[in-house]
Amino acid sequence: MATNYDKYVEQMRKIADISHSIAVLNWDKETYLPKKSAAMRSQQIATLSGIVHEEFTNPGFGNLLERLNNQKNIDDDKKKNVTVTLKDYYKATKFTKRFVMQKSMAVSKCFQAWLKAREANNFVLYQEALEVLVKIKRIEAKKLNSNAEHLYDNLLDQYEPGLTVAKSDKIFNGLKKPLKKLISDINKKKAPKKNFLYKKYDKDIQWNLGIYILNEIGYDFDRGRQDISTHPFTTSFSANDVRLTTRIDEKDLSNMLWSCIHEGGHALYEQGLPIKNYGLPTGSAISLSIHESQSRLWENNVARGKAFWNKHFRTAKKMFPKQLKNQTVDSFYKAINVIEPNLIRTEADELHYHYHVLIRYEIEKALIEGSIEVANLRDVWNAKYKEYLNIDVTDDVNGVLQDIHWSHGSFGYFPTYSLGSFYAAQIYAQAEKEIPKLEKQIAAGNSMVLLDWLREKVHRHGRRYEAEELCEMITGEPLNIKYFMDYAKKKYKKVYN
Amino acid sequence: MATNYDKYVEQMRKIADISHSIAVLNWDKETYLPKKSAAMRSQQIATLSGIVHEEFTNPGFGNLLERLNNQKNIDDDKKKNVTVTLKDYYKATKFTKRFVMQKSMAVSKCFQAWLKAREANNFVLYQEALEVLVKIKRIEAKKLNSNAEHLYDNLLDQYEPGLTVAKSDKIFNGLKKPLKKLISDINKKKAPKKNFLYKKYDKDIQWNLGIYILNEIGYDFDRGRQDISTHPFTTSFSANDVRLTTRIDEKDLSNMLWSCIHEGGHALYEQGLPIKNYGLPTGSAISLSIHESQSRLWENNVARGKAFWNKHFRTAKKMFPKQLKNQTVDSFYKAINVIEPNLIRTEADELHYHYHVLIRYEIEKALIEGSIEVANLRDVWNAKYKEYLNIDVTDDVNGVLQDIHWSHGSFGYFPTYSLGSFYAAQIYAQAEKEIPKLEKQIAAGNSMVLLDWLREKVHRHGRRYEAEELCEMITGEPLNIKYFMDYAKKKYKKVYN
Repeated sequence: MATNYDKYVEQMRKIADISHSIAVLNWDKETYLPKKSAAMRSQQIATLSGIVHEEFTNPGFGNLLERLNNQKNIDDDKKKNVTVTLKDYYKATKFTKRFVMQKSMAVSKCFQAWLKAREANNFVLYQEALEVLVKIKRIEAKKLNSNAEHLYDNLLDQYEPGLTVAKSDKIFNGLKKPLKKLISDINKKKAPKKNFLYKKYDKDIQWNLGIYILNEIGYDFDRGRQDISTHPFTTSFSANDVRLTTRIDEKDLSNMLWSCIHEGGHALYEQGLPIKNYGLPTGSAISLSIHESQSRLWENNVARGKAFWNKHFRTAKKMFPKQLKNQTVDSFYKAINVIEPNLIRTEADELHYHYHVLIRYEIEKALIEGSIEVANLRDVWNAKYKEYLNIDVTDDVNGVLQDIHWSHGSFGYFPTYSLGSFYAAQIYAQAEKEIPKLEKQIAAGNSMVLLDWLREKVHRHGRRYEAEELCEMITGEPLNIKYFMDYAKKKYKKVYN
Repeated sequence: MATNYDKYVEQMRKIADISHSIAVLNWDKETYLPKKSAAMRSQQIATLSGIVHEEFTNPGFGNLLERLNNQKNIDDDKKKNVTVTLKDYYKATKFTKRFVMQKSMAVSKCFQAWLKAREANNFVLYQEALEVLVKIKRIEAKKLNSNAEHLYDNLLDQYEPGLTVAKSDKIFNGLKKPLKKLISDINKKKAPKKNFLYKKYDKDIQWNLGIYILNEIGYDFDRGRQDISTHPFTTSFSANDVRLTTRIDEKDLSNMLWSCIHEGGHALYEQGLPIKNYGLPTGSAISLSIHESQSRLWENNVARGKAFWNKHFRTAKKMFPKQLKNQTVDSFYKAINVIEPNLIRTEADELHYHYHVLIRYEIEKALIEGSIEVANLRDVWNAKYKEYLNIDVTDDVNGVLQDIHWSHGSFGYFPTYSLGSFYAAQIYAQAEKEIPKLEKQIAAGNSMVLLDWLREKVHRHGRRYEAEELCEMITGEPLNIKYFMDYAKKKYKKVYN
């Protein structure tokens, strides 16, 4: 006889099957969709989204969850699954199916408008669709909890459970001063040369280099694949099918490099989730900041490190003998770590990156609270880039149109990018303590020791712990940006002598 | 206020959205799926299949359909939609959701087993999964109508409404004698040379040639795309997203050529269905034989014709100057029309092709009726190839494992291949009567006149008419294999002088 818990699992798997089908439709939308099929695809995604909502908010399922939640003799993992799901259930029941489908359609339209606006390099073509979506997001935030200190808290919470404006402000405020000081110290030194990164790098060979590196860091191509898309992303249809995308700029080797490794880090996390818990919280990623900690850890702490290139520079050089002719591991390492303000977040260095995030965080906060409107977005954006990075935004594609997130309705997402970097630094510092000769092993091409450690410490748990809990469990203390600052100071001392 | 008919349309669109999502999952499964994700994908497809079944067989929907069916003041198209849907509804209600999901899982397993068996070139690895599926298909046939003259009639009817063993036997029996006579007459003549088709043809250039031809016949790449798969197929996610796949053999130009054009013909039909009737019978293809009439018409009547190559041979020659150096339009035309028995259906010439179909038809009939078992399949297959084509089957991949259909549970599908060829000949003969100087226009590269004619006569109607009805409407008489035989005699007189 099926127990209540069995029934719960069955329903969760059904919902996961439909949600992952939506993910397939979305993956296809961003990689291979023919030009004129966007509208029909949007409708198909909206229909499935409606069904997911219906299945998840079914009152019978709610009753089942409540009964399970009151059950005494239930083991910890099961208990965790039930309590997390019940919390999600209460949130989901605040919305009607109609609202969910409307939002889905608005997202699709907004994404299409974003694509068109980018093509025309004109924010105005995006404005109307984004206005509709922002209105919906404000309603969403209100429905979630109209008594929140900040409405935006409710959106932050969707990506990072428990994150609030108060907490984010505290973190960013703690960062501002030491970050400014470090950048100013660095700017007194002469920057290493990096112009060779912008020679012509053949597309196909770049692709091969990306595949080589993904293999090297342990990404399993039997349980995933890489494709090309405008905006790189990682998506999962189960731990056995985790896909990433990259983009290739023939005049910028770093573009492909960091997007490959960054998405690779996300993908390693998803591939490391226990497939036996498919569809359940214990089979899912904790939060976006922990997700981002995995991508940033591989991107920055590992692949922007010298040890990594001690092993792999020879391969890169073999693939691009002309372009890298006069370069050494050291000059390459320094070039990929040059600090300078720029316009594009995804191409930012590890320090200025946080200003890019901060700008978006401040804008979103104001947008959801209603103190600015979509119509002002371009002006606000450009002003903030002047304020924080002291650069003039040249055009919309390099400015307010650069990110895909808002077109997806993802407000509250950006702050997790900075949190992720800080978690990455703290987790990596612990890995260095626990894994004997970690840097030497990476230099010898054995980054598997690190992956194994992450699998054990992070991946295999799914949502068994909250982000902060996990951090304490692994590193013995709560999130502390000191680790990130220490890491940065140490690195840039080397890079800038 | 939404009328009953509006409610009907809404539900049909919802079901279409889910069904087309399944199609996306299947397309991805056969083009891009990572090695180890088949099991999870199968489960996801089964879940969506269960939902489609639930939505379609919902008794409330049944009531709605019956009420609409009894409604008097309803226009012809609406009436047609309702009656066709009601018929489909009654059929669908014969199955439980459990059965539908079991079948879906069995199909996925069988497809995986087929892939493995092909890899190992060993039918035995396929046998068990196919036995399970055949059992399910027998149950399916019984549930549909246990009083049918032949159980297999019920499966034929799923692909070709109204087709029966009696009808199929009559058609094949009518064909056997004249076909044998024609082949024997041809065999008295010396065959044109075709060995140049088997030189090395670069993969990428073949791909480009395929794309060129698809563009030329009017396939709209803004509403579809082509990819590579083991077994070429066409699938539709709406008339605005119709995708085809091809395969490329570097040692055989014809392989890519005919698969591209054949699937292109299918795709033209799907792209020509009225998008405003999305999800409704009047927005769907009539039957597989009519579908096949469109693919065979473009493949054989058009692209194996001399007029077509009068225009396009120069492009092929530009792409393959070495391989086609000594060839002319005439020698090329003759080479692609050489008649000889072979092992692979999809590579068969236009005459022997029907023996390939006949063999499968006879086997399926026997398999569903239970007069042979899956365990005997290889022996029966090989014996029939000896009997009908007088050739020895060399191995399983070139024998019983060559077709994907049974692994998909598609029993009753094959006969529509022959019917499609006959419909194609009859429809094309009519086109020649109605379109001024059709051959000349094709030779001038203006095959659009033909596509427009087909759009008008066939595509735009969706399922407004049954196959036989449509045939009479277009050509003034029921299906008559005389047109096929006349076409064949005329062509091979030219090819074999």
